[in-house]
Amino acid sequence: MLTRIDHIGIACFDLDKTVEFYRATYGFEVFHTEVNEEQGVREAMLRINGTDDGGASYLQLLEPTREDSTVAKWLAKNGEGVHHIAFGTADVDGEAEAIRNKGVRVLYDEPRTGSMGSRITFLHPKDCHGVLTELVTSASSQH
Amino acid sequence: MLTRIDHIGIACFDLDKTVEFYRATYGFEVFHTEVNEEQGVREAMLRINGTDDGGASYLQLLEPTREDSTVAKWLAKNGEGVHHIAFGTADVDGEAEAIRNKGVRVLYDEPRTGSMGSRITFLHPKDCHGVLTELVTSASSQH
Repeated sequence: MLTRIDHIGIACFDLDKTVEFYRATYGFEVFHTEVNEEQGVREAMLRINGTDDGGASYLQLLEPTREDSTVAKWLAKNGEGVHHIAFGTADVDGEAEAIRNKGVRVLYDEPRTGSMGSRITFLHPKDCHGVLTELVTSASSQH
Repeated sequence: MLTRIDHIGIACFDLDKTVEFYRATYGFEVFHTEVNEEQGVREAMLRINGTDDGGASYLQLLEPTREDSTVAKWLAKNGEGVHHIAFGTADVDGEAEAIRNKGVRVLYDEPRTGSMGSRITFLHPKDCHGVLTELVTSASSQH
């Protein structure tokens, strides 16, 4: 079961400037930052609200760290904007398997490590009406 | 103050097919449907989770009802995908004014009617790092 909008992933050219835009314009503060070498991104998580499944919803601001990362290629084609959306679940493995069995392409054979120690996978946007869709189990939900 | 991710607006060519995709793939059910003649869209709201400000987060699926609507033009250029994101606030008028005073272009002089009797306005995506951004005060928050 998918129980929340976990985050909205937003690709940007300059993470520091984009963080400052969200702080100055809306008052959103940085909750967490990290570099994900596998994904080739530097990111900032801005916590927007708590959710009734015990989790939270974030904006995830993403700046590529290398030219050959998927986010760098996406930015070169699309410019800045919403890159993906993510739904939270207590069981990313089970959800990914169930969704794969419905004929939707799941991009990873097994979930990988995402923000803040989460486990994540992605669904192919062409199978999801144009929306790159992530499934995420937060570190606190892993047993 | 912006207190939640209110919704993610997703543009699609065929609302019924897209609703069915979200139901069959994730189990998300339609919470509300309506036609907004002013915006030129037919829409379905899928409620994903409650939020700790007393509101909720939705997916808003949007199908244009006429060729000259902004969503129709957006689809013709971009194809299906995430069209905008929306933050919830108890005071869309005050927030819009404060944000306008920071130099961000607000697209309406006064907020207009959005989904489910809400009051909404939009911020220019070029002033928001490529993200068309909506501010929304839900009907239940209006005094």
